[in-house]
Formats: sequence, structure tokens, C-alpha cells
Amino acid sequence: MKNSLAPLTFAFSLLFLAATAFAQPATRTPPPPSPEVHADRTVTFRFRAPHAQKVELSGQFLRSNQPMQKDESGLWSITVGPVEPNLYPYNFVVDGVGVADPVNPDIFPNEGFKASLVDIPGDTPGLHHLQDVPRGELTYAFYESKTLNRTRPLVIYTPPGYRAGKDKLPVFYLVSGTTDTEETWFRAGRLNVILDNLIAQKKAVPMIVVMPYGNMHVGMPRPDSPEVAAAYRVFGDELLTNIIPYVEANYRVIADREHRAIAGFPRGGGQSLFTAFNNPDKFAWIGSYAAYLTPEVCEKHFPSFIADAATTNARTKLLWLGVGKSDFLYQQAAAFNGYLTEKNIKHIELITEGGHTWMNARHYLAETLQLFFK
Amino acid sequence: MKNSLAPLTFAFSLLFLAATAFAQPATRTPPPPSPEVHADRTVTFRFRAPHAQKVELSGQFLRSNQPMQKDESGLWSITVGPVEPNLYPYNFVVDGVGVADPVNPDIFPNEGFKASLVDIPGDTPGLHHLQDVPRGELTYAFYESKTLNRTRPLVIYTPPGYRAGKDKLPVFYLVSGTTDTEETWFRAGRLNVILDNLIAQKKAVPMIVVMPYGNMHVGMPRPDSPEVAAAYRVFGDELLTNIIPYVEANYRVIADREHRAIAGFPRGGGQSLFTAFNNPDKFAWIGSYAAYLTPEVCEKHFPSFIADAATTNARTKLLWLGVGKSDFLYQQAAAFNGYLTEKNIKHIELITEGGHTWMNARHYLAETLQLFFK
Repeated sequence: MKNSLAPLTFAFSLLFLAATAFAQPATRTPPPPSPEVHADRTVTFRFRAPHAQKVELSGQFLRSNQPMQKDESGLWSITVGPVEPNLYPYNFVVDGVGVADPVNPDIFPNEGFKASLVDIPGDTPGLHHLQDVPRGELTYAFYESKTLNRTRPLVIYTPPGYRAGKDKLPVFYLVSGTTDTEETWFRAGRLNVILDNLIAQKKAVPMIVVMPYGNMHVGMPRPDSPEVAAAYRVFGDELLTNIIPYVEANYRVIADREHRAIAGFPRGGGQSLFTAFNNPDKFAWIGSYAAYLTPEVCEKHFPSFIADAATTNARTKLLWLGVGKSDFLYQQAAAFNGYLTEKNIKHIELITEGGHTWMNARHYLAETLQLFFK
Repeated sequence: MKNSLAPLTFAFSLLFLAATAFAQPATRTPPPPSPEVHADRTVTFRFRAPHAQKVELSGQFLRSNQPMQKDESGLWSITVGPVEPNLYPYNFVVDGVGVADPVNPDIFPNEGFKASLVDIPGDTPGLHHLQDVPRGELTYAFYESKTLNRTRPLVIYTPPGYRAGKDKLPVFYLVSGTTDTEETWFRAGRLNVILDNLIAQKKAVPMIVVMPYGNMHVGMPRPDSPEVAAAYRVFGDELLTNIIPYVEANYRVIADREHRAIAGFPRGGGQSLFTAFNNPDKFAWIGSYAAYLTPEVCEKHFPSFIADAATTNARTKLLWLGVGKSDFLYQQAAAFNGYLTEKNIKHIELITEGGHTWMNARHYLAETLQLFFK
């Protein structure tokens, strides 16, 4: 496995560090390499902060924040693990404030906090590791939202061979979480790498994946509140009125419900369920990663989808719901699964170990990628 | 002007903030909106850090770091300006440590520090502002480097209409700075937006722009040291052996020297000059943004390029060098300009106000984009 994203040793002159920095405090020592993943899968994290009183490591591989130790030069460090192979978000909590690892370019894109990513390789490459397979492309695009009167970003995956090809392809709309951006499914979710690998293994069919910016800036009530429906509806309108027409005008797609999927984590999952249930003529493939709707919202907004299970089941190619047992939304997600069962709505449940993590989100993504459009 | 990159008001429930965060300290208040650009072009920056002793604002619109003030809730803030319209990098220096603005998703990609971007709009849209013009695309790609035995990233701009078109196009290789990444020219440099606008105004010809990851991880001697040549050569080998063949195999390009340009800022400028002077059969268009080579390096590594000015001038379509009077590299860059003049090497110099900033780098980029391939 070759991994270009992990930083190698940084060795640059002080002059050239200054050359690309700007009005920064003078740095007399080069930044420490961090994170350093050792052969035994222990990992050393380092952060230079001579004046901080307390620095902790926070990460999805930890049960709780771990205190880091300061040396006489002001360099804080900690070695943890061995850590189970996976790709994990982490950050440093410096006197109570979470900050990304300054010397790690592999960032976790988010509007509400800054974090970084660390990859712990296993004995064999993971689905999220670059392998020697044909590669798709990621395209950054902008579209005009007539409804929001704004230019908004999209990230679009096209599979290997798309540029030179002529075939029309199915499309999967993969929706971001509350404070995530259109980039989070690419960077923290490694959508492109996972799908390249699954297509090479013939476990997924070639498809286009559209990653919208899910934040509609309309506020976000709790998912168990009836008011959440109004917020979800703004996303659905944006998707149907602006995003799907943009994609269908610019990409070779099969523009019917049987070739259109939608899923997301976690607010993106709620938006996906609401949009798909509300528009059964538009989506035949539906995924929910650690998300749910309440019976109250379902019965108010799509009564026939729920009441007429025979029609719903005949039309829905897949309704897939995954959640971890330690997820703080587990009880609500499990209750939603039970509600669907009680209403005879056909669906697939996957209950895993673990919590509300990107390791689980990638797992659920990989599961659904292998089911869509088959 | 519609700008989707600036964050609007953040209004999300605490539950959903937690849903996409991970092991973070409990947040009782939503993050503050930052930066807030006011109508009079003053800007308020805010950063929540109740336990910090000292927080300063650092930015390329300031002459020196400015102290921020803490309120009783632990929120630090400062209002600066009015600020001249432009797009500026900035960050917060928290007890001596530079951190990005946690609630601003518009990041400055870098391996050595983390910073954010703030856009101060003028009365009319700038070249770096999204306007209602046809848009090109940015593609994230990976290629295999046989020389480095690694998979490495590339960002590639294709102009409006490329996907549906058939024409072959010229290619501009735009090289990143020392601790910058393949993304920095797109995010801090706004290459795609500037070029879309220049093409729409018929001031630039449609071209493909390839943004390699310029860090070869070989160390970086000072640019006035003779040892810098060996480091620059590793980049040139990577470009000629791996990157150009990848681009020419996957994109519709005119694969000759008259349709191939190279430029960069600032280490990328040194790499560009060295690679172009060393390979006059490969590049006819050359740009240097706040960079230079020493006479010693020139005369050792490309003696005939320098000595045979008649041949060099006949073959070189453009040798363009820009630098700011306050740049800490100004003296060396001006000396290089003088050396070229003394050797009768035809070139264009642009000496501007300002220092070693991304505002100047974008200015030089926009100048050369209007000259290349004409």
C-alpha cells in the first residue's frame, strides 16, 4: 500500500518555513512530526505549546481524552495504543479548546470544529486505503441555487473510465452531517477510495456519487422534534429543484428512480430518509447511517408511504439502516427500526459494535455501496 | 456576487453539534460567528478560549499581530479595519500557538501551520470572486510516482466546456510552496475562480492547469545555497518522469513546449525556474512569483541557457518575474532580475507594493494567466 496522504518527515529550512507562513511568531525549532505511527501500531502525537497549562489528546480511538505531557522545550506528547487498524479523527484540546494538528495536512473538514485524521494501517490494505486499482475522479463544482439565491459547492465522484466512456450511470446522493461540509465524505469518509476498491473487486457497480453541502443554514431542531421536518424539507427542495437538475444536465446519468440512491450520516441520514419517503417517485434506494425519523413525523408528512406498505415495499429497492450499539442515538434508531417492522415496511438493519464514529459511518457506506443498483 | 464559501449564521442544536463532533469538551454555547465582515469593511474576529492567557489575531492584512480582548464568557474578540478589499489568510495565536478559526470552513491548506481565509468584498466583484460566468472544474487525481514509489495527489483545473469538448489545450503547471499542498493554489490562490473569470472576459485562453504537490520531502536548503539545486532537481525529475506523462495520458493536451507553461510561489517559483532553465526543450512559458535563482546555480547547472542569450531569447516565449518591494526576498529577486538583464536574457519584471503575501501571489498569477499561450 502506498499512502501519499500521511506526512513524511518534515525537513525544511527556517527561511522557507517563514517564506510560506505569514505574520506568525518566530519559530526556532521545526514543527514536530505528528502523528508518528509505529510498527507495533502505537502512535505518538506531538504538539508544541510552551505556554499552555493543559493539553489533551481527543480521538475516536479513545474512550476519553488523554492528558499529554510537556517536556522542557514546550513540546507536549503522548503515545497511545496499540490502536486497531482504521482511519480515525482526532484533535488536541489545548486549555479546553480543540485544535487540529498543525503539522498534519490530512484534515477533517467541518464548520464547527477543526480536527485531523490518523491512519493506522493493518497487515493488509483496508477498503479506505489507496490500492493499485483503476481510479475514479473527484470533481469540485459549483451550482446556482435559485431557491437559496446562492452559489453552492458540490463534490462529485465519477468512476474509473468515466471521462473516456459513453455509458449512462446510476447516481448516489451522499449527504453530509450538521456541521460537516461537502468535503467530509471525501476526506473523513474516503468515499472515492472505498468505491474505487469495491468497483475493482466487482463488489459495487460503477456509479456517480454526488456529495452536496447539506447545511441549509435554516437551523436544526432535534431529530426527535416535529419541527425537524421543516428543516429537512428545505434540503429536499434544494436537492430536487437545483442539485439533481444540475447533475443531470452535466453528467451522463440514468435519470429515473430505479437508478437514484440517497443516504447520509447523521443529519444527512435524517435528510435522506425524509426526502426519500416524501418523494417515492424519485428514489428507490435509501440508506440511513445512525439516523432515524419519528413516527409522528412519518405519519404527518408521508402517511401513505407508511400506511400502504404493499405499495412502498413493491417500489422500494432498498431501505437500509445501520447504527452502532454505543451510538448516543442508538435507542431512537432502534425504535425507528421497530416502528418500520410494526408497519410492515421492508428494510435491512445492521446493528454494529461501536458508537457515533466515522469508522462506523465508513462501514455503513461500504455496506450500502455493495447493495445499491443491483 | 454570490459567495457560498463564507459561513452564514450557525444555528444548530447542541444535540446535533455533539452528533458530528467526537470526544470534545462539552460546549454550552454555540460557536461564535467568525469572521464577521461589516458593511464598512471592518471585520470582527471571535475565538472562544476561556482558559487562554493571551490571544492575538495574525493576518496578512495586519502589520503585526493584534491583541484580542476576552469577555466574561471567555470569548475573545477584536474588530479591525476598514480593510482593503481582498482575500486574506489569518489565524489566531493562542498563548503563542497559531490555530485556524474553528468555525470558518474556508481553510488555508498547509503542512506546517493551520490558518483560515477571510474575504473582504469591494464595491465590484474581484477576479477571485465567483461571478455568473461559465465555470471550469477542479479534479482531484492520484498518480503513481515510479521514482518516489508513492501514490501522490494532483489537482487539475479544466476550463468551461472541457468535458463535452474535443479540442486539445495548452497546459500550465502551477507549483506549490514549501509547506503548501496541492490544494493551496486552489483555496488560497483561487486559481479556478480567477481563470474562469479571465476566460469569460477573453483575457486568458482556455487552458488546463495542473497543481502538483511540490513537496518532495528531500529537505529544502536556502534558495541562495548551491545545495538547493539538488532539491529542485528532484522536483523536475518527478514532473518530467511522472506528472507530465500522467497528464498527457489522461487529458486532451497539446504536448509540446510552446503549449507548456510553468510557474509557482515561492519555493514553487524556484522549482519552476530551475526546471524550465534545465529543460528548455520542454517549457516555453516561465513564471516566477517572489522567487529567484543565484548566478552560481545558473552557471553551474545551465551554462548554455545563460551564455547563449540569442538562442534562449528565441526559444523562450515568456520569462516573467514578479516580486513585492516589502518581500523579505526582494533584494535577492531584484538581484536575479539584474543578473538576467546583464546576461541579455529577455524577461518581464513586475515590481509591486506589498510583501510576501497571497494577495501578491494571486496578482502575479492573474498577470501571467493573461500572457501565457498568446
